[in-house]
Amino acid sequence: MKVTYNSWQKEYKNPFGAIQANSAVKWSIAIDEPVQEVILWLTKHNESPVAYPMNYDEQTKKYETQVKIGSSGLYNYYFAIKQNDQMQYVDQGLFGQGNLIQDNHDLNQFQLTCYDRKVPRVDWYEQGVVYQIFPDRFANGNPHGEITGRKKNSFIYATQEDDPYYIKNTRGEIIRWDFFGGNLAGIRQKIPYLKKLGVTTIYLNPIFLAISNHRYDTADFMKIDPMLGTEKDLRDLIHALHQNHMHLILDGVFNHVGQDSIYFKAAIKDKNSHYYSWFNFIDYPEKYQSWWGVSSLPEVNKSNPEYQDFIYGENGVLAKWTGMQVDGWRLDVADELPMDFLRNIRTRLMKENCQVMIGEVWEDASNKLVNSKFRPYVAGDNLTGVMNYPVRNFVTNLLTTDEDAAEISIMSKLASLIEHYPSNFLRNCLNNIGTHDTVRIKTVLHDNEKLVAIAFGLMFMLPGVPCIYYGDEAGLIGKKDPDNRRFFPWGHESQSLINKVSAWVKLRKQNKILVTGKIAFMHFNVGVNAIIRYDEKNILIYCFNRTDQDIVLTKDNLKFYCLPDSLVSVVSSALDQVQLAAQSDLIKRKRIAVK
Amino acid sequence: MKVTYNSWQKEYKNPFGAIQANSAVKWSIAIDEPVQEVILWLTKHNESPVAYPMNYDEQTKKYETQVKIGSSGLYNYYFAIKQNDQMQYVDQGLFGQGNLIQDNHDLNQFQLTCYDRKVPRVDWYEQGVVYQIFPDRFANGNPHGEITGRKKNSFIYATQEDDPYYIKNTRGEIIRWDFFGGNLAGIRQKIPYLKKLGVTTIYLNPIFLAISNHRYDTADFMKIDPMLGTEKDLRDLIHALHQNHMHLILDGVFNHVGQDSIYFKAAIKDKNSHYYSWFNFIDYPEKYQSWWGVSSLPEVNKSNPEYQDFIYGENGVLAKWTGMQVDGWRLDVADELPMDFLRNIRTRLMKENCQVMIGEVWEDASNKLVNSKFRPYVAGDNLTGVMNYPVRNFVTNLLTTDEDAAEISIMSKLASLIEHYPSNFLRNCLNNIGTHDTVRIKTVLHDNEKLVAIAFGLMFMLPGVPCIYYGDEAGLIGKKDPDNRRFFPWGHESQSLINKVSAWVKLRKQNKILVTGKIAFMHFNVGVNAIIRYDEKNILIYCFNRTDQDIVLTKDNLKFYCLPDSLVSVVSSALDQVQLAAQSDLIKRKRIAVK
Repeated sequence: MKVTYNSWQKEYKNPFGAIQANSAVKWSIAIDEPVQEVILWLTKHNESPVAYPMNYDEQTKKYETQVKIGSSGLYNYYFAIKQNDQMQYVDQGLFGQGNLIQDNHDLNQFQLTCYDRKVPRVDWYEQGVVYQIFPDRFANGNPHGEITGRKKNSFIYATQEDDPYYIKNTRGEIIRWDFFGGNLAGIRQKIPYLKKLGVTTIYLNPIFLAISNHRYDTADFMKIDPMLGTEKDLRDLIHALHQNHMHLILDGVFNHVGQDSIYFKAAIKDKNSHYYSWFNFIDYPEKYQSWWGVSSLPEVNKSNPEYQDFIYGENGVLAKWTGMQVDGWRLDVADELPMDFLRNIRTRLMKENCQVMIGEVWEDASNKLVNSKFRPYVAGDNLTGVMNYPVRNFVTNLLTTDEDAAEISIMSKLASLIEHYPSNFLRNCLNNIGTHDTVRIKTVLHDNEKLVAIAFGLMFMLPGVPCIYYGDEAGLIGKKDPDNRRFFPWGHESQSLINKVSAWVKLRKQNKILVTGKIAFMHFNVGVNAIIRYDEKNILIYCFNRTDQDIVLTKDNLKFYCLPDSLVSVVSSALDQVQLAAQSDLIKRKRIAVK
Repeated sequence: MKVTYNSWQKEYKNPFGAIQANSAVKWSIAIDEPVQEVILWLTKHNESPVAYPMNYDEQTKKYETQVKIGSSGLYNYYFAIKQNDQMQYVDQGLFGQGNLIQDNHDLNQFQLTCYDRKVPRVDWYEQGVVYQIFPDRFANGNPHGEITGRKKNSFIYATQEDDPYYIKNTRGEIIRWDFFGGNLAGIRQKIPYLKKLGVTTIYLNPIFLAISNHRYDTADFMKIDPMLGTEKDLRDLIHALHQNHMHLILDGVFNHVGQDSIYFKAAIKDKNSHYYSWFNFIDYPEKYQSWWGVSSLPEVNKSNPEYQDFIYGENGVLAKWTGMQVDGWRLDVADELPMDFLRNIRTRLMKENCQVMIGEVWEDASNKLVNSKFRPYVAGDNLTGVMNYPVRNFVTNLLTTDEDAAEISIMSKLASLIEHYPSNFLRNCLNNIGTHDTVRIKTVLHDNEKLVAIAFGLMFMLPGVPCIYYGDEAGLIGKKDPDNRRFFPWGHESQSLINKVSAWVKLRKQNKILVTGKIAFMHFNVGVNAIIRYDEKNILIYCFNRTDQDIVLTKDNLKFYCLPDSLVSVVSSALDQVQLAAQSDLIKRKRIAVK
């Protein structure tokens, strides 16, 4: 018996991918032998499976059923086929292809995402390119490079070329914080550089008062850290960005505060302080719940209404800063914020006319369970997107694996993510090939800038908004934290890499297909693959050879995934006999002949 | 039998103290009963004892002998008395008093120091007051306080109030050096402060190119460390000091160099380098002899003629800097420099018209053995003085002990030192109550500034040149290294302490007796003692009460040590009924009536 199903093809599943609640999905499955019964088993997370019998359609020669999905949530499905009183099952293979198996004990079910609302499409954001800046490490804008607002008992790096270093005591705790002295004025001064690179949006790691250099240990949410500047410096930065048609995203850290925060200090000073209830004390005042057990980061009791109001209320943190025309927020450790808190944050941001609310979620956000509970991030009423770490995994894995099967599996995994995400949500995700929390891309790729250029190419080819981690475009290296937070190498940038990155930015601006187009994949050989974006009229093919051998593509050896059959020949022809030098890439554009 | 001997009284030993080679000493001892025989046993270090029979003198009623001491060195002596065919012995008790004992197994012999030459008396030095500056920690003289010449991968303290901290890796090695950014220009700018304090000489910790903040790990002896400034800055400093009738002493670190020095790097790069023989390699290039096993400080083979010439030759290190009118040198770890090296350094300094050569020797320098070999530091042909750490021990012990006997013993120990040192050498010693290598005096004295004032009083009262460790006069605190190397507290000085210290400087200037006078001690009660300086015409008494009780002195309860009998009544009368409030001190001056 041969069974054909492919969730990427409309003749088998229509519509493709995630659907909005109260809309219908039509499933079709082709079977080349007579069978007694075909059932679609559809299960909503934490509910009982429901059986939908599928009927044979003479015209399409497929078993079909149409289901109206009433409520949003996480659904999974598979098919059960009875033949000769024997059961067989169809679960998910690579790239949405059905996979016939005899045993239903360990089914790899298909996923159907059902969301409540579409998140808005925000042109400046969706079509732009984001640049992530770790504020202490980018640029110092003071007249003589002096560092203001210094914190007692902290250290300043002697030179901007210094290697970052955690200063720890014998117990391994950070005892002194280390600063390079980047600030808001420095970022403002570098707008011409960013503009030339093509960046349209800046995402800043935290900027509020804190003891550390990363400032994830907020001391006062209502104050700009004086090392970074003043409120006026922030206003000036925002003004300068907007003058240049650029935008600003801030980092909101609402899960925990610093041990030295005014809130926690008030709570441990006086049990009767109204801040006492903001925290979860286990043994007052010494023991309290803290982020990952890090005692310097007391966790906030986010269900506390007073705290919630402090964050998203009319006079709260978000209102204050968003009121200064901040264009978006990235929410730290979104997984640890209650869903209603996220929804109310979104409501506040909407009121402030702020449309971008990106969550720090490292995995596939459409099916994330936190403490066994499903988190409906993609429902549309909370986050508008997430930091797209799966893109980084895709890029780094694809550029460091040495097996055909592994490469195909890596691409298939990314295809799943694309299938799972509502399309607007997907376009809102912030793609990265490195952040302040990861090893730098150049270091992952053994300092090979040719491969770094390919990594950038892959990031720009994928759906979502590319986010460049400051310095990656300039050839900055860095192992894990703190080494990945070196100062921007002003004067020692890799100009060739910058040129390549800015060429990608330009390509993205000139080709909306990179924003809205559909995606397909190609595999030729180990290390030689392609990403294809297409719409009704155009095809854009990005093909790379990461091996150290020059190669020539031959169309008979190209394997395509997720590509409609109608496009296979045109793409094949475009690539046939194409030469790819070792560690090089190329871009091919094709118009689709209108039939 | 009662025996009377006192090495502090000329009727028993004449002359007092150390003698020059080829001069005679007359010993006399009084015994109140008839005896068969009295012998002076005199032993030169590492030679056999020599017996000098003593003859009874009818006029003085004492047994006497006169011995011409031919050669310089370290001598010890005691007396043997035969009575009724039984032997008894006289060795050293407190304050040079003879002590009759029955057993000669564990004699505490008297010491006789014999030197070759008198070290010169240098008015500006002998009569002055020295101020020790750890250059990174005193003052930054750059226009905007900027720090120039920064070293890659080092740290700058965020504020001048920061607590010093050693940045170590998990193996406990210093991995990054920490700097406050003091420099030569800063010292020059603070000359008015130092002049007002009364300081006449500055002693600088090392200033040559090095990796560390202490710069005892020289990288290049011929270069000023760029963080401190340039050769011009040194010349400017010297010029400004001399314009203000002040002088400069530098720190010579000739026992070891830095692992990053141009010398050691050349040696490990190429075995054929002429620098190879400067070092003692155990397993080239990894294992080598280093100072106290600290691998970052390779020890130099000081017997190497090329190295010696590099230091004291005509175009050597000392010639270069002394030629810029440096007025004196302090030699680091003098104990580890060969004697001939020291002598040749002295010769070079004499040629350069430089008279001050102070050795870092922590103990009594007149009888120091290094690897069981006597080191003739006080011979007169090498060091002109040493850092007088015994003064610090005296002061801190005297101010923290709680027993009469202990206080008397502490004073007696200092009296011994005074007796052992040639008088010019003694006057050349650099007294301290704290240096960059010790806990700060204020911290030793539990932050009690009244006691700190007494500590300064004691230092100024003792023979030798007072050396103020920067900031001690301003109330700076600090536990052991690195805490004792805080930045000078500009703007937060203890003005009352500064006033007291500058009063002492003035007193020293106005009373030569503090430079050249003889010394005696007084004990009244636990915590109540006095130091007395006197000459033929004047007596200056410094009396202190370190207890927290007000007291009144009564002349019958005063015990004097080393004070001639002729002066006892005048000092007693001067102190009788004197009131001393808790933790206070007073100075009394008396003219001696000419009989």
